[in-house]
Amino acid sequence: MAILEKIDDPSQIRNLCPEDLRTLCEELRRYIIECCSENPGHIGASLGAVEIAVALHKVFNTPEDQIVWDVGHQAYAHKILTGRREEFRNNRKKDGISGFPRRDESPYDAFGTGHSSTSISAALGLAVAAQMQGRSTHTVAVIGDGAMTGGLAFEGINNAGSLKTDLLVILNDNQISIDQNTGALHNYLLKVVTSRNYNKLKKSIWDKLGSTRFRSRIQKNVKNLKRFLGKGTGEAYSLFDSLGFRYFGPIDGNDVELLTKTLERLKTIPGAKLLHVITVKGKGFRPAEENQTIWHAPGTFDPNTGLRTGKKPDTARFQEVFGTTLLELARSDERIVGITPAMATGCSMDIMMARMPQRVFDVGIAEQHAVTFSAGLAAGGLLPVCNIYSSFSQRAFDSLVHDVALQNLKVILCLDRAGLVGEDGATHHGVFDMTSYRSVPNITIASPIDERELRNMLYSATLPDYGATVIRYPRGCGSGALWRNEPFEKIAIGKASLLSDGSGVAVLSIGPSGVKAAQAIRQAAEKGVKAIHYNMRFVKPLDKEALADVCSRADRIITVEDGSVIGGLHGAVAEYIADNGLSCKLSGLGIPDSFIGQGKPEELYSECGFNTADILEEILK
Amino acid sequence: MAILEKIDDPSQIRNLCPEDLRTLCEELRRYIIECCSENPGHIGASLGAVEIAVALHKVFNTPEDQIVWDVGHQAYAHKILTGRREEFRNNRKKDGISGFPRRDESPYDAFGTGHSSTSISAALGLAVAAQMQGRSTHTVAVIGDGAMTGGLAFEGINNAGSLKTDLLVILNDNQISIDQNTGALHNYLLKVVTSRNYNKLKKSIWDKLGSTRFRSRIQKNVKNLKRFLGKGTGEAYSLFDSLGFRYFGPIDGNDVELLTKTLERLKTIPGAKLLHVITVKGKGFRPAEENQTIWHAPGTFDPNTGLRTGKKPDTARFQEVFGTTLLELARSDERIVGITPAMATGCSMDIMMARMPQRVFDVGIAEQHAVTFSAGLAAGGLLPVCNIYSSFSQRAFDSLVHDVALQNLKVILCLDRAGLVGEDGATHHGVFDMTSYRSVPNITIASPIDERELRNMLYSATLPDYGATVIRYPRGCGSGALWRNEPFEKIAIGKASLLSDGSGVAVLSIGPSGVKAAQAIRQAAEKGVKAIHYNMRFVKPLDKEALADVCSRADRIITVEDGSVIGGLHGAVAEYIADNGLSCKLSGLGIPDSFIGQGKPEELYSECGFNTADILEEILK
Repeated sequence: MAILEKIDDPSQIRNLCPEDLRTLCEELRRYIIECCSENPGHIGASLGAVEIAVALHKVFNTPEDQIVWDVGHQAYAHKILTGRREEFRNNRKKDGISGFPRRDESPYDAFGTGHSSTSISAALGLAVAAQMQGRSTHTVAVIGDGAMTGGLAFEGINNAGSLKTDLLVILNDNQISIDQNTGALHNYLLKVVTSRNYNKLKKSIWDKLGSTRFRSRIQKNVKNLKRFLGKGTGEAYSLFDSLGFRYFGPIDGNDVELLTKTLERLKTIPGAKLLHVITVKGKGFRPAEENQTIWHAPGTFDPNTGLRTGKKPDTARFQEVFGTTLLELARSDERIVGITPAMATGCSMDIMMARMPQRVFDVGIAEQHAVTFSAGLAAGGLLPVCNIYSSFSQRAFDSLVHDVALQNLKVILCLDRAGLVGEDGATHHGVFDMTSYRSVPNITIASPIDERELRNMLYSATLPDYGATVIRYPRGCGSGALWRNEPFEKIAIGKASLLSDGSGVAVLSIGPSGVKAAQAIRQAAEKGVKAIHYNMRFVKPLDKEALADVCSRADRIITVEDGSVIGGLHGAVAEYIADNGLSCKLSGLGIPDSFIGQGKPEELYSECGFNTADILEEILK
Repeated sequence: MAILEKIDDPSQIRNLCPEDLRTLCEELRRYIIECCSENPGHIGASLGAVEIAVALHKVFNTPEDQIVWDVGHQAYAHKILTGRREEFRNNRKKDGISGFPRRDESPYDAFGTGHSSTSISAALGLAVAAQMQGRSTHTVAVIGDGAMTGGLAFEGINNAGSLKTDLLVILNDNQISIDQNTGALHNYLLKVVTSRNYNKLKKSIWDKLGSTRFRSRIQKNVKNLKRFLGKGTGEAYSLFDSLGFRYFGPIDGNDVELLTKTLERLKTIPGAKLLHVITVKGKGFRPAEENQTIWHAPGTFDPNTGLRTGKKPDTARFQEVFGTTLLELARSDERIVGITPAMATGCSMDIMMARMPQRVFDVGIAEQHAVTFSAGLAAGGLLPVCNIYSSFSQRAFDSLVHDVALQNLKVILCLDRAGLVGEDGATHHGVFDMTSYRSVPNITIASPIDERELRNMLYSATLPDYGATVIRYPRGCGSGALWRNEPFEKIAIGKASLLSDGSGVAVLSIGPSGVKAAQAIRQAAEKGVKAIHYNMRFVKPLDKEALADVCSRADRIITVEDGSVIGGLHGAVAEYIADNGLSCKLSGLGIPDSFIGQGKPEELYSECGFNTADILEEILK
């Protein structure tokens, strides 16, 4: 790591020769593999984008010139090059650095990311602000072909393509998100790449970009380059050019010398430009190149052999319960179809997809469309089960209100990754679903305490008396409740379940936090305090009978939820107490009114104050 | 109206000759003008789309074949033709028909709309459902060029363009949303339309579409047609074709014969197709053609002269207060920029736009981008004031959380049309903003009681101690408080204002509902009941001192808000009461847990139970 270990900030890259740049890329790759083998991360995308990071910091005068990394999975090399080489060993750990760019972490992180498709809009904002304040700096958005399908990216393109603002978009095309990409844009890009011999072109592209001295000459060079690239197929020329961008490419995005020289020439061309680069996800690490879906975020592994060393959990994850149960239900109900916005593997809808490919729709990164499309399927007589990560579902809030709930269409919306997700941190925690969706009429909102209850909730939601239903559950494993091949049991809408009885103090929990609550209650009982415990199962409708029971026998009520305490279960119970003029004292345990960073889930539960010990303390108060 | 008065359902259109179809269109136009002159509505778009509605119902076997009207403003002719001719006189009235398509109103309304850009996703859902269930029906989405810029429309295109499902998208291009359209897509479509002599083409297009009998012949005809249309410019060919659609057009969408014959041929072509039609907004009514922005929804008018007869309100609307104050603030603070997603006139940002065109960005219908772009501008050192209608802001929920709040970027987000909007009904009421945004950390949520307070809130939000701030206010006029040229007064963050004092019972209001509350309190005082009244001004942060004061002196508290009672001010106060173990009885007046239809605002306040009389009744209980 002779070169890398001397790079403390990007200015030290700027005088490296091409040979050294190539070496630096290799060292970066080795370092990323080494670190991620012990401390898991999103290795695949970052390995593919090493040359992009090096070339950008070589050519542009960061941090005055600003780079926005869409999603941010691919920004590890960027982080390592910008003063965070050693900190990278604590990537995604509590009190370590974030796995995503963050403005509060480094001046080189021009804009925080995590959710997909924001980079063009954000970079355009930065570019317009620079322009209006007379700063002649450059702004670059780096966006994957997967993220490009998100509607927000298109909205950004539509706006940027009509303004006279300098903006460079690098379309990092590796033809994969986490799963294989789908959709018309994907097909289009694939055609562009395969319909021209871009390897032949790549060496000559920058020669065509020419000198930078004179505007007229720039224009001529742009024209020449575009004419040259447009030869053979009219398609590559058209899509982004139609939308007001100057399209360049495709070129090999893993060739650092070509990339550097191309960027140097592009720097001098004004207006909105898009450079289409082809990279290989997992580049330079054979196992990762060969199975890109698994190696998106593989856990720990042996850096030499590529053997994954993370031990498998003893019990099934909620994801497997969802995927297996969905397939089972779909086998006996022909109306059931699955919809996922590019998360088939993550949410385990791939289980149904493998058996019933015609009945599962991966719509690409497009949460709004996933829900409105589901509403259309329901209006057409099918029973759509749409699975979206809780924090990404914020994108589909309006679709849930306007297309599903208002029309009373039966869509089952499963929110995976609800609650604190752990190492992905603030952008990915699913905090706001209960609180924001609870005010939407016509929907039922449920959350299972364990695997078996998830299975039964999913089953129940398909029954006729359930309408539009939201089922939220977290990432990872539950308490290990038996579920596989168990007979289905119907859960009545809005019915809580009494888990333990007592008096004076009551715990109302929703979701798997109920397991922690039950532990705390057992420990309290050992100390002689017997608490009532209801697993509420639904935040909407709320079980008023259970609440009446609790309020008649307890003067202290503790709510426990893996979600924002503002407005969630805590809010619902507070409304019940205050509206009825009761004098119970309520304590809301859950995620407080601040953004929570990354760390192990248990660490974060403690930070927020709803771990077993916290619940016990609250009971014993 | 010899023909129109005989049309009770679309089957009666199907055997009309071309001559009669033209007459029918004229009659429809006259009828729409006549009805809307007395009972205001969205006349402009609907006049432009008369021929589209007639041709679709002539060619397709509705309601088995399904039409989804994007936004729905343009669907008046569709409503009149599908059994709602007489009911149309009660368009947008309470207990009348909705101004938008609604599934519960007619089987011909295949999917309810109101918000923009949903039609392609919804229609694709309907089409896939039909296909999977073996129904060989047709599905059509009619979408305006304005709505096409919304990210959701692109997500729908991206998915539809890669599926082998029959779907026809009619792009109704009138080059205007409410204000003039902007953006790269607009520029592209304009180029398409102006770069070819489409008038010359229009008569010959359907001749080229050919017979329907044989697949191979269809393919040949498609190819011939496309080659023919592609001549002259490669651009029209490319954008939608690149995304997997077969593009046809542009043709004159106000020529019913051409349209009918084109649709008949298109019906036989499989897969995803887009027909680009050019229409004139306000077609057939000169004043509406000449000033399309005003005539988008002009209020009452004289159908002969076009003179608008609606009387101007005596006091300024909140919109004017916003627009005027924004300009004033921008004059003394160079950092201030305005951002609107296609609502410059509606929210009165056009006042600043006229004086400072370089500092206002109309980003087109693109709520997500509007907010993420604003976040980028803020990160770049500017002070963006972004104005979005409350119900449309649901599209930008994730942008508010992920791009603004998480990064603590100072964006001032003004939510116009917050609360019940009146005649636009369920899709447009701004119900959920307080309840969903209240759980988002780092933001302040305020709502002014009157014009003067809006002005001062907007001013205060620009001051250094305010961070990201949401200011919500309703459509229309306030109580008439003096505001123009008044000196600015700073409002401290989270500080309520005591409007009247009393004991035993307290009213806490937010926003202009406070004026109704104050009236009720005056009436109660006449009956000897003196209530405390706080204008809370902020739902976040909540004024805890005011609450402590109230709870110490009143055992009944009434919250009043023009928003969902679940989780809003009512929820916030309930949390305070329950968390502190107080025994106040709370009554939450506001929008209940159901979708509220259209009507005059006063009618709807009464329906929801938070009109002056309701508040009085609650005080006197």
